[in-house]
Amino acid sequence: MTVKLISEYSVTESLKKQVIEWRRHFHRYPELSFQEHRTSQFVEDTLRSFGSFIITRPTPTSVVARLIGKEEGKVVAIRADMDALPIEEENTFAFASVHKGVMHACGHDGHTAILLGVASVLSQLGDEFKGEIRLIFQHAEELLPGGAQELVKEGAMEGVDYVIGTHLNSGLPIGEIGVLAGPMMASPDTFNISIKGKGGHAAAPHEAVDAIVVGAQIVTNLQTIVSRTTNPIDKLVVSVTQFHGGTTHNVLPDKVELNGTVRSFDAALREKVPAQIDRIVKGLTEAYGAEYTFTYEKGYHPVINSEEITRLIEETAIEEYGEERVKTLSPKMGGEDFSAYLQETEGAFFNIGARNEEQGIVYPHHHPKFTVDEDSLEIGVKMFLRITEKLLAR
Amino acid sequence: MTVKLISEYSVTESLKKQVIEWRRHFHRYPELSFQEHRTSQFVEDTLRSFGSFIITRPTPTSVVARLIGKEEGKVVAIRADMDALPIEEENTFAFASVHKGVMHACGHDGHTAILLGVASVLSQLGDEFKGEIRLIFQHAEELLPGGAQELVKEGAMEGVDYVIGTHLNSGLPIGEIGVLAGPMMASPDTFNISIKGKGGHAAAPHEAVDAIVVGAQIVTNLQTIVSRTTNPIDKLVVSVTQFHGGTTHNVLPDKVELNGTVRSFDAALREKVPAQIDRIVKGLTEAYGAEYTFTYEKGYHPVINSEEITRLIEETAIEEYGEERVKTLSPKMGGEDFSAYLQETEGAFFNIGARNEEQGIVYPHHHPKFTVDEDSLEIGVKMFLRITEKLLAR
Amino acid sequence: MTVKLISEYSVTESLKKQVIEWRRHFHRYPELSFQEHRTSQFVEDTLRSFGSFIITRPTPTSVVARLIGKEEGKVVAIRADMDALPIEEENTFAFASVHKGVMHACGHDGHTAILLGVASVLSQLGDEFKGEIRLIFQHAEELLPGGAQELVKEGAMEGVDYVIGTHLNSGLPIGEIGVLAGPMMASPDTFNISIKGKGGHAAAPHEAVDAIVVGAQIVTNLQTIVSRTTNPIDKLVVSVTQFHGGTTHNVLPDKVELNGTVRSFDAALREKVPAQIDRIVKGLTEAYGAEYTFTYEKGYHPVINSEEITRLIEETAIEEYGEERVKTLSPKMGGEDFSAYLQETEGAFFNIGARNEEQGIVYPHHHPKFTVDEDSLEIGVKMFLRITEKLLAR
Amino acid sequence: MTVKLISEYSVTESLKKQVIEWRRHFHRYPELSFQEHRTSQFVEDTLRSFGSFIITRPTPTSVVARLIGKEEGKVVAIRADMDALPIEEENTFAFASVHKGVMHACGHDGHTAILLGVASVLSQLGDEFKGEIRLIFQHAEELLPGGAQELVKEGAMEGVDYVIGTHLNSGLPIGEIGVLAGPMMASPDTFNISIKGKGGHAAAPHEAVDAIVVGAQIVTNLQTIVSRTTNPIDKLVVSVTQFHGGTTHNVLPDKVELNGTVRSFDAALREKVPAQIDRIVKGLTEAYGAEYTFTYEKGYHPVINSEEITRLIEETAIEEYGEERVKTLSPKMGGEDFSAYLQETEGAFFNIGARNEEQGIVYPHHHPKFTVDEDSLEIGVKMFLRITEKLLAR
Repeated sequence: MTVKLISEYSVTESLKKQVIEWRRHFHRYPELSFQEHRTSQFVEDTLRSFGSFIITRPTPTSVVARLIGKEEGKVVAIRADMDALPIEEENTFAFASVHKGVMHACGHDGHTAILLGVASVLSQLGDEFKGEIRLIFQHAEELLPGGAQELVKEGAMEGVDYVIGTHLNSGLPIGEIGVLAGPMMASPDTFNISIKGKGGHAAAPHEAVDAIVVGAQIVTNLQTIVSRTTNPIDKLVVSVTQFHGGTTHNVLPDKVELNGTVRSFDAALREKVPAQIDRIVKGLTEAYGAEYTFTYEKGYHPVINSEEITRLIEETAIEEYGEERVKTLSPKMGGEDFSAYLQETEGAFFNIGARNEEQGIVYPHHHPKFTVDEDSLEIGVKMFLRITEKLLAR
Repeated sequence: MTVKLISEYSVTESLKKQVIEWRRHFHRYPELSFQEHRTSQFVEDTLRSFGSFIITRPTPTSVVARLIGKEEGKVVAIRADMDALPIEEENTFAFASVHKGVMHACGHDGHTAILLGVASVLSQLGDEFKGEIRLIFQHAEELLPGGAQELVKEGAMEGVDYVIGTHLNSGLPIGEIGVLAGPMMASPDTFNISIKGKGGHAAAPHEAVDAIVVGAQIVTNLQTIVSRTTNPIDKLVVSVTQFHGGTTHNVLPDKVELNGTVRSFDAALREKVPAQIDRIVKGLTEAYGAEYTFTYEKGYHPVINSEEITRLIEETAIEEYGEERVKTLSPKMGGEDFSAYLQETEGAFFNIGARNEEQGIVYPHHHPKFTVDEDSLEIGVKMFLRITEKLLAR
Repeated sequence: MTVKLISEYSVTESLKKQVIEWRRHFHRYPELSFQEHRTSQFVEDTLRSFGSFIITRPTPTSVVARLIGKEEGKVVAIRADMDALPIEEENTFAFASVHKGVMHACGHDGHTAILLGVASVLSQLGDEFKGEIRLIFQHAEELLPGGAQELVKEGAMEGVDYVIGTHLNSGLPIGEIGVLAGPMMASPDTFNISIKGKGGHAAAPHEAVDAIVVGAQIVTNLQTIVSRTTNPIDKLVVSVTQFHGGTTHNVLPDKVELNGTVRSFDAALREKVPAQIDRIVKGLTEAYGAEYTFTYEKGYHPVINSEEITRLIEETAIEEYGEERVKTLSPKMGGEDFSAYLQETEGAFFNIGARNEEQGIVYPHHHPKFTVDEDSLEIGVKMFLRITEKLLAR
Repeated sequence: MTVKLISEYSVTESLKKQVIEWRRHFHRYPELSFQEHRTSQFVEDTLRSFGSFIITRPTPTSVVARLIGKEEGKVVAIRADMDALPIEEENTFAFASVHKGVMHACGHDGHTAILLGVASVLSQLGDEFKGEIRLIFQHAEELLPGGAQELVKEGAMEGVDYVIGTHLNSGLPIGEIGVLAGPMMASPDTFNISIKGKGGHAAAPHEAVDAIVVGAQIVTNLQTIVSRTTNPIDKLVVSVTQFHGGTTHNVLPDKVELNGTVRSFDAALREKVPAQIDRIVKGLTEAYGAEYTFTYEKGYHPVINSEEITRLIEETAIEEYGEERVKTLSPKMGGEDFSAYLQETEGAFFNIGARNEEQGIVYPHHHPKFTVDEDSLEIGVKMFLRITEKLLAR
């Protein structure tokens, strides 16, 4: 049997240009999480233009494209996320966002374009290969509960042996590939603490229960979860990001709202934190005769990359770009719902450098001037093709 | 020369009824501070109907009525405040507020009606007395900078020897009079603390300066101004009434706003507090590498009643109602711009009981169900007449 | 019947000298609380030398001397305290303490000398008067539980109608008398908070419960009892005066001890404070998974002077020294077991000025250089004689 | 040339017994840091009895024994620490400490015995090998500034190519070997914060500057160095272990002393912490008008194991005991002055399991009942011999 090898197909100059054009198109028409109607339609249409793929729409704004080889084999999934952010773009280039207050400030435009580029190459394989390649164009990575878990629920991961994904990284110089085995992105849980004191005249605090004082104490004491209660070897963040109480100068409010986030990698640690927060809030509110409600919502799982698949990606990157271009990343306390796929099967997430200081491409993700060096797109296409080939061959 | 004595004129049943009607009228049509157009017009019109008074409008919504005796003598001023509050009334009686979200929830309707009643009686004197009686129908007691200081600036207190005022008090049983020599109401200053940290991702606190943590520490440490820095014999309140920072779960805000109030009686102490707040805010922001602005706005002066005039009021009340009905009040940390008049001359402020538990008239001031026992109105008229007579005679 | 009047006897120059000598004697030989053996013996011997008195020793180091008139009448008690302090004197005058580490740094030497002076004059009365004068030379005012309550228990106050006492005051200029009706000295309660965390290696805080962090939080949160929970009109002090925990650099201690004091005038407020402390300690220890014991010991009652007796003292002082020499004192949060007598009957405590800036007599009480202007002694004798005369005559 | 191989010499039953006896001897006669006179003499005498070694005493209580091969080659140093702890032993076995209050509660008795066992075997080599083996019997590991840096200063590491050391670990089961490449033990720095407030009567806090309140705030705010200022990926401990202020119930002390420790692995992070502590202490003392002194003393360097040498140790352990017996350790925030040797050359520290739950050998290090499973001693001897052989052969 003749099975085509992916490596026979190269990324042509014209494809490279095409991928950049796709990215600019997505950049110009960004859509918020769960609202990627136009984007997903464009993706579907483009995929259909390639032929070869079995295309489904598991949710209104996602697309899954399956390329099935004639012989059974490994099933490899590649994921790109497609949603944009509620940020007003400050870039002035021609393809800047035309949607007011919405912007691709995290590089998902590039991810989607890269995966279309991958599809374009792969479509030439037809069924002349062993196994299956599944391209997951995911919606809503930026917004809890995230699109990934919806797609998993809809069966997008059924039968998948390996899953891979990437993120363009404006902190990593163009030309470099970043990898990290093990914990890479944290679980971004959220919490709300609602403190009920007793409102009253600001001139008569003794007739009130000062919810602002209680709230302040809670913020202060929550610091000790990281500084005292957690093994210093572990990695944990507990941040209160919102503190709101009071409407006027002379009235002590009866209520204060605190919101925040907890970031961790370790499942056992993560399980303990809500009780630790609760114990502190309970103790403090009792100390002041206040009441409270505490709600804790688990966010994405942490991204824990497979050691083996990460090695495979690392080797691929070294082969393509040389050892000096391959960097070991530090874990980040940010979240990424790619973890939902990793709950289902083995896989790994990696980064592609997209920073270019000479060209002023230096803004952090979520910044109104964020952009990427578009040379990163070709690298993305190539990396996915090479990794996929190796995974199919395992 | 024959000089009429105020005491020759009694408060008739019909006047009593009239005063109640006036109060209900004002109650039905409450107006916010500095917006007392209809109220002041009604007062002016009614005063004009009495004749005898020289009427001026020092500011758009205040009225001053002077009754001048044919012989020179002491000048006695009586003040009533006329403004209502931004509170949605929950009373259901016939004369409840017809102005949505505005309500006489502090008894100023009664004060105004009482002073009209006083005017009605006094108008019968014509000029057959020695001295001058000046009735000050003041606007805007509830809202900084207050109407009193405007009236003082417009000359309302020129030549005045004694100034008196009262407050209906729903905490004091009907029939009782409350007096207090010396400090009675505090100076209600306000402050704003704006903390500038450095915003950032909630997962990377080390790249941010957490303004919420700094704000919490400031609230906590401000407590020590009262608990440690101030003589325990003195009376001081420092309340943070507003704490606002943050807009979302995963971003540490770069800014937090704190607002609050400081209440004191003693001028020297009052002068010290802003520097004490500033020192704490400065120390804490420096400890965290944050920045701040701190603004402190002085409110009304404290109400410090004249010992002698208070004794005179007390004696009058004892004569009229008996010793057991006259109570010594505790000082209150609330503010009252009657103090602006006391800055100009000797005088005193007193309370008239307006609580009636049997009738369910028990709600505190500023409560949506606040009201007064209307029997208090006649007491107010009588007290003012008797006190004025005595003051003119000094 | 001829009854001698106290006022017939004046304070002679020689008595004045004698009183100063007595004071210097006591100053030279100070004795700590409950150890006033030599002092009390000297007092007893001196009193016996006067004749006329019925002398008892209710406790080992106190003396009570009764002068009983031949006619029944009012019983007036005068109290002087005799104990010294564990302070190393830094004065260099000839009669400085010869007892190392013990010093009359609070003026009790003067009080005792004054009362001997009073005894010397009164002894001349014999029984030629109506009523009884009881001189109480009290031990142990400086040390809980205090000598006053022991003397009360031993019957020293039986039958007493009025009780008076004074304190030489190095903050009040010589020649002045200080009086205050109502609350004058606070109740000095004490408390202990023992926090049990879980000791451990300082490098592994997560395996410990950090009692120092809990203790710090308790100190901080206790501030709010004064700043938030107590009516700002009331007077309260909550001070943590001892914080001890830890023995070495690399071990988190399992225990922290906090000690402190609570000062208040108002009985109802005083009753509430222990529960407020307990609530805060309970809440904080629960927040951290620590344990605690809390003990609260009531100290002396507050000194609440009788309005009438204070007026009588004030009038006496005005008669003797003129109105400009009589000052109204501020209440002090310090304690004084004279209150034990006031629990039994009506009375008042007052101050005699003993400061002299020109002579460098300016050091505060309990200072190693404390002393008094000895002209204050004669004033003390005279005041007691005049007040006693008036009280007997009531 | 014939060069003897270390592996030709096995650990005989009689040597095994001998090593246990040595360990018991050291256990019975423990000596505190810098006072290891008897121990070091015993070590020297025993080494001399083996012959072959060149023995020096670089410091009064340390011993260095050099075995020099006839051919030049790699120089391998093996270190054992010999000091005991100021702990009162609670074990009751026959060889329990006879020195009151001193105890080998950390296993150094075992380390010394193991290295004597190693010496015993190696001495048979004579000079029939290539390179040099240097046995360092170090004093004072438990007490800053530590013996290791003294030995380095005295030249003990001159010419050394590789250095290895071990710790018996009562947390690791007998039979297991623990290894960790990279950061293994933290740098244990110490600090003192002395806060000068203003002492005063506890009843008059406004006349004092309450150093206890300031100290409490400092403890609280120091928590944020770990929780907010440090990258959550990094590992840091800031522990306040001593808080002392105050001597009596009614006096606010003028001074509070805080002591603590800082643990870190990363040099850059470590450099930043003193300034962070200082900034917080400065800000808080300024906020309260207090003063302070802050001293920070650097402790040992962190132990950062060579990747390569750790791999070599790991391989050796796997060869000897099988893969399932070799564990990857977690880093520990405790300190170890073995780091002083690693500052000089490449090397690694590893652990030998000494826990035996069946035999009740479960107590943590520094516990009064700490002991080790003595089977660990033979494992130590064998591991050192095998590793040394491999290192010499590099």
